[in-house]
Amino acid sequence: MKEEKLLKLLESLSWTEKVGQLVQLSGEFFNTSALTVGPQQKLGISDNMLKHVGSVLNVAGAANTKEIQQQYLEKSSHKIPLLFMADIIYGYRTVFPIPLGLGATWNPDLVKEAYTVIGKEAQSGGAHVTFAPMVDLVRDARWGRCLESTGEDSFLNSAFASAMVSGLQQDLDKQEGIASCVKHFAAYGAAEGGREYNTVDMSERKLRQDYLPSYKAAVDAGCKLVMTSFNTYDGVPVTGNQFILKDILRDEWGFDGVIISDYAAVRELIDHGIAEDNKEAAYLAINATNDIDMKSPCYANELEPLLNEGRIDGKLIDQAVLRVLKLKNDLGLFEDPFRRATEEKEKETLLKEEHRALAKKVTAESIVLLKNEHGLLPLDPQTDKKILLVGPYGDNQELIGLWAVHGKTTDTISIKTGIESYLKPENFHVEKGCDMLESYEFLGEFGATKDMIDSLSMSDEEKAMHLDHALREARSADIIIFAMGEHTMQSGEAGSRTDICLPQIQRAFMKQLIELGKKTILISISGRPLVLTEEAETIDAIMQVWFPGTEGGHAIADVLFGKTNPSGRLSMSFPYSVGQLPLYYSEFKTGRPLTSSTHSGRFVSKYLDSPNAPLFPFGYGLNYSSVQYSDLTLSDTTMSDELLINVTIKNSSSIDCLETVQLYIQDVVGSVVRPVKELKQFKKLSIAGNTTATVQFILTRDELKYYTHSMDYDVETGSFIVFVGPNSEETLEASFQLV
Amino acid sequence: MKEEKLLKLLESLSWTEKVGQLVQLSGEFFNTSALTVGPQQKLGISDNMLKHVGSVLNVAGAANTKEIQQQYLEKSSHKIPLLFMADIIYGYRTVFPIPLGLGATWNPDLVKEAYTVIGKEAQSGGAHVTFAPMVDLVRDARWGRCLESTGEDSFLNSAFASAMVSGLQQDLDKQEGIASCVKHFAAYGAAEGGREYNTVDMSERKLRQDYLPSYKAAVDAGCKLVMTSFNTYDGVPVTGNQFILKDILRDEWGFDGVIISDYAAVRELIDHGIAEDNKEAAYLAINATNDIDMKSPCYANELEPLLNEGRIDGKLIDQAVLRVLKLKNDLGLFEDPFRRATEEKEKETLLKEEHRALAKKVTAESIVLLKNEHGLLPLDPQTDKKILLVGPYGDNQELIGLWAVHGKTTDTISIKTGIESYLKPENFHVEKGCDMLESYEFLGEFGATKDMIDSLSMSDEEKAMHLDHALREARSADIIIFAMGEHTMQSGEAGSRTDICLPQIQRAFMKQLIELGKKTILISISGRPLVLTEEAETIDAIMQVWFPGTEGGHAIADVLFGKTNPSGRLSMSFPYSVGQLPLYYSEFKTGRPLTSSTHSGRFVSKYLDSPNAPLFPFGYGLNYSSVQYSDLTLSDTTMSDELLINVTIKNSSSIDCLETVQLYIQDVVGSVVRPVKELKQFKKLSIAGNTTATVQFILTRDELKYYTHSMDYDVETGSFIVFVGPNSEETLEASFQLV
Repeated sequence: MKEEKLLKLLESLSWTEKVGQLVQLSGEFFNTSALTVGPQQKLGISDNMLKHVGSVLNVAGAANTKEIQQQYLEKSSHKIPLLFMADIIYGYRTVFPIPLGLGATWNPDLVKEAYTVIGKEAQSGGAHVTFAPMVDLVRDARWGRCLESTGEDSFLNSAFASAMVSGLQQDLDKQEGIASCVKHFAAYGAAEGGREYNTVDMSERKLRQDYLPSYKAAVDAGCKLVMTSFNTYDGVPVTGNQFILKDILRDEWGFDGVIISDYAAVRELIDHGIAEDNKEAAYLAINATNDIDMKSPCYANELEPLLNEGRIDGKLIDQAVLRVLKLKNDLGLFEDPFRRATEEKEKETLLKEEHRALAKKVTAESIVLLKNEHGLLPLDPQTDKKILLVGPYGDNQELIGLWAVHGKTTDTISIKTGIESYLKPENFHVEKGCDMLESYEFLGEFGATKDMIDSLSMSDEEKAMHLDHALREARSADIIIFAMGEHTMQSGEAGSRTDICLPQIQRAFMKQLIELGKKTILISISGRPLVLTEEAETIDAIMQVWFPGTEGGHAIADVLFGKTNPSGRLSMSFPYSVGQLPLYYSEFKTGRPLTSSTHSGRFVSKYLDSPNAPLFPFGYGLNYSSVQYSDLTLSDTTMSDELLINVTIKNSSSIDCLETVQLYIQDVVGSVVRPVKELKQFKKLSIAGNTTATVQFILTRDELKYYTHSMDYDVETGSFIVFVGPNSEETLEASFQLV
Repeated sequence: MKEEKLLKLLESLSWTEKVGQLVQLSGEFFNTSALTVGPQQKLGISDNMLKHVGSVLNVAGAANTKEIQQQYLEKSSHKIPLLFMADIIYGYRTVFPIPLGLGATWNPDLVKEAYTVIGKEAQSGGAHVTFAPMVDLVRDARWGRCLESTGEDSFLNSAFASAMVSGLQQDLDKQEGIASCVKHFAAYGAAEGGREYNTVDMSERKLRQDYLPSYKAAVDAGCKLVMTSFNTYDGVPVTGNQFILKDILRDEWGFDGVIISDYAAVRELIDHGIAEDNKEAAYLAINATNDIDMKSPCYANELEPLLNEGRIDGKLIDQAVLRVLKLKNDLGLFEDPFRRATEEKEKETLLKEEHRALAKKVTAESIVLLKNEHGLLPLDPQTDKKILLVGPYGDNQELIGLWAVHGKTTDTISIKTGIESYLKPENFHVEKGCDMLESYEFLGEFGATKDMIDSLSMSDEEKAMHLDHALREARSADIIIFAMGEHTMQSGEAGSRTDICLPQIQRAFMKQLIELGKKTILISISGRPLVLTEEAETIDAIMQVWFPGTEGGHAIADVLFGKTNPSGRLSMSFPYSVGQLPLYYSEFKTGRPLTSSTHSGRFVSKYLDSPNAPLFPFGYGLNYSSVQYSDLTLSDTTMSDELLINVTIKNSSSIDCLETVQLYIQDVVGSVVRPVKELKQFKKLSIAGNTTATVQFILTRDELKYYTHSMDYDVETGSFIVFVGPNSEETLEASFQLV
């Protein structure tokens, strides 16, 4: 549809019809039974408004969406199709690793392929928009939503943000893929104390320097929508924050797509205490240029009264509605309200063999080998050694994590299944060993009844039996593989924890088996960086596999047995203890640095009882090769426009590897304090066994820009240090002068 | 001296002499031996400059200061006396409780008396200026310098800031007391991760609303000096930060006293990476109107070159020097360079009986009774029960904490001594029981040699023997008093910790004795809120006594035996775990509050594994009486200029008590998000046994002001809630409308 036609359509709408386009409700409002009575009464939305509602939340499936769309359009006078939006964060039916695992691939191109697949599957399932990517910078592992982020670094996150948007929206104009909604704008990841939905406070400098770039990258990549975050900035929740939405997103960045509130966030302006009632909440949000009100009665019931009272200008509503109509038009919904989604196409698309293959590849690259004492890994599939797989995640398909809401655990390859394909049955034994959690009481928060909770928990007799079996098998095993981790419900949204160790029941169980003195391997499953300090001392090899997704078991087994040489690198620091948080490699210089020639003794910036550095740093990960960095050279000692940086990397083993070469800089003196290190570039390249590669980076002047004292985004001349290495701590150094 | 004479004196000085006034060096530069060779060479300050240096750091004692002043003046052409400045934070020779304990008194009038005594003692010892009060707002118990602060609330801190300044400077114009230097300006307490000297980042809104008021209160109370903080604000270390020092402190607040850098902070602008060398560091600091450069070569060597190169205006130096000269003049040093300090006066002043008596009273009011199961306390001095005092702090005079540098532990009353005066010897037994720490290795940071460290540590045989003795005595005891706590070196400056439980060795020891099933009491000694979660479950009574100071043992015994009814209330929240930090009662409202009629289940602002609330909240403390609050009434349902708030408080026990009645408000709807509760007033009053008191607060319009969205400090009309109670959690509520 041409723009002029859209404008005419807009003109033809009544105010109620216009407002409807700005309202999003969830699926239960659109079931036949719900159309007459049901939860819309509770939300306080009238049946009349329901007829005009412009978008639907989290309804999926080609058949289902088609039926709802048909029914809706039949009753619709203007035949404006519904938009179907859904949480499709890291997989639709083929589930990829959680984004914190995707971050560990350090491979945006590969992740773009994954999101292309996600877009295809979602499109076939009738979805039009996904609330992804989530690109919040995360530096506090207590926060459950670390799971959804690619990590702690704004440059790396930006690369992934761009890749994910491009993947999802590939060929969008040809009715392929789905529209991307970047979230949560802005700075949601800085929730104080890592506590979900908590206050965020920071300087504008920190906001712009660290937190905004990943959202900007998504907007620059063309994402069609932006979702507001729950948190405050400068005392105002973002959903009503004109500075964030209007001044920065609309005016500075020129974003003319749809802004949608997070779930019920407009109404929650009341809970925040900046709106007295629904009407004031609607007033604040629409004035901040928030277009769609998700799952709240505020726009539906209050925009028209505000208009009638002359408190808001009709133009404000028209602009918002036009943005929604444009989105529908860009998606081709006026031409085909089903966007080519059919049950047949859906059936042939979901979980396609090539999708599974890609998922396996991505998962394999997401696995981070944290420890590998005495080359215990990879295991030899031909071994005659007895291998015991033990722990609650051994024979378990619950590997997709909390936010893969359209995925099915029944599609998932368990670790047991993965390993079985490698080993002779007589050499492989599986035991549950111990329960996942001490208590399942907290599941009550999702409505689990006492009976359901009781049914999950082992009785004392069962516990004793499982331990007994595990101990017996462990005694006769040569190698014990622990499949341990967080419960799915312990991370993700509203999964904040003050204790981020493995569950105590699992740790106590492992201790008993470790005492037997066998070789031990930990497969660690989690939605966040865990505290693995004790495990790193007592276990021979540790693989961090996140929630690995549909192909988890295959990918894990491939790494265990060396079919895949692990290449994952942490994109978020793993702390020694929760007492170090927040923690990130790019910390600012202090006046009394811990490691310095001029400072020593007590009066330096440190903890008395802990290192400042993490247990496993940003960028860290082992492989089965032996790789050495040398000969870091710069093309000049001064730089004007660009500088060539060369480094030699030798794979002195016979095993091919994928090596992620990381380039950091330090701006030695600035008009404001600068980080000790900042990631500026990285290259993931394959290096064949017993070969040497020379890697060249071209560093440009623009990459040295930052928000100077005057808040100009600019370079400042002077000394810089270049660091190149396999992670943020083990680096070679060289210096140059920017002139 | 009249101002015009001062100006003439200023004019008569050479630039070198002027710069000298802006340089502060420590005592070792002024010993006869050090005058020729010594550490000034290391700092790089010339002998010529040394002759003109205007102030001395941490030299104490009437004889010592007199000798140095005499020698200095003999060689001085202009006869400008030296200023003696020292760290006299919570006591000179008579040591009061650490400020976190003073905060727990909720008694600024009493604390003013204490600081009057501190000022008198310090004056008699030849000091002219103290680097106190430290008024940094503290909300992260990991930070060691919690010890020096009165706590987490800006209103309460402001009351203490004002009291401390007034006490120290009492009769300053009559050459009594000493000049006060408030510190650390500004926001040092917000060091990220609670790690000493770490970056601070916050919005200007938070700075002004929460962090600045206590410094402002000190300035308004007339404090003569302000010390810069080590941290950054908006990316610039405060020592070179024009916004903080010039715009806010000088221009907005009109402060015309002396600004002094913290120790070496000018030179550390280089480590921060905002100055390239000493010259640039000096340039930034003098331009920010920092007057005195403490313990760094920057001003001494670089101000004249900067002047000669035309980079700074001589006026800048003249203004700074004039402020220093004025301070010397205000202190009467031109009339009497010794400020009436004599060895005789010193002898009769230090540790005077009335000073000790006041210290005992203050300490008694600082003790917070956290738990008292079944009325175990107070103990009956006439009891025939056997009482065992056990733990590293039982027979130990190390009760003054890290920052009482002029105090002497040999003057201190131990807990053992305190209790002995109450009990028949046959009923009282003391055992060390266990060592203070697992390891003393970290003392190496203060230069302790391996031999010294070894000599502190118990051998395994000693450990076994002490445990054995303690267990034997515990078996025959009826009541066990544990005297446990942090080592002095575990808190205070650069005493950041990631684990803030009692030392593990002490906890393991207690567990063994608790298993005997006797009545147990914990006396907890610390410089910070500890995690006492386990102890609160297993021990019958807990008294938090901080580092209680010179009269610690007496005050503790008085509370134990009921001579003093405890009245201390926490001024900083005690967390359940380190994973809750930062933690404070006045948290902001969120969109998904934990306790609300509209929110439940998973998706609320909480941790999965921990309460949001602290173990012991702000304002909390028990006593031996039984006190009930009732009948909260407001004089009206609306308020224009003021509102009368009445509450009835009944002491239904026979024991007189000191009750701290706390008045909090909530501004229900604001143009920015407001705290759930804010302390606005409090009254500490005595309520005789079996009587009822009516307490009236007059709340005024001005007290409802805050920094609104537009950053005006103003009121916003609308709903308010009044909370009155004995602590921040147990409150009665009433509402009114501000019109």
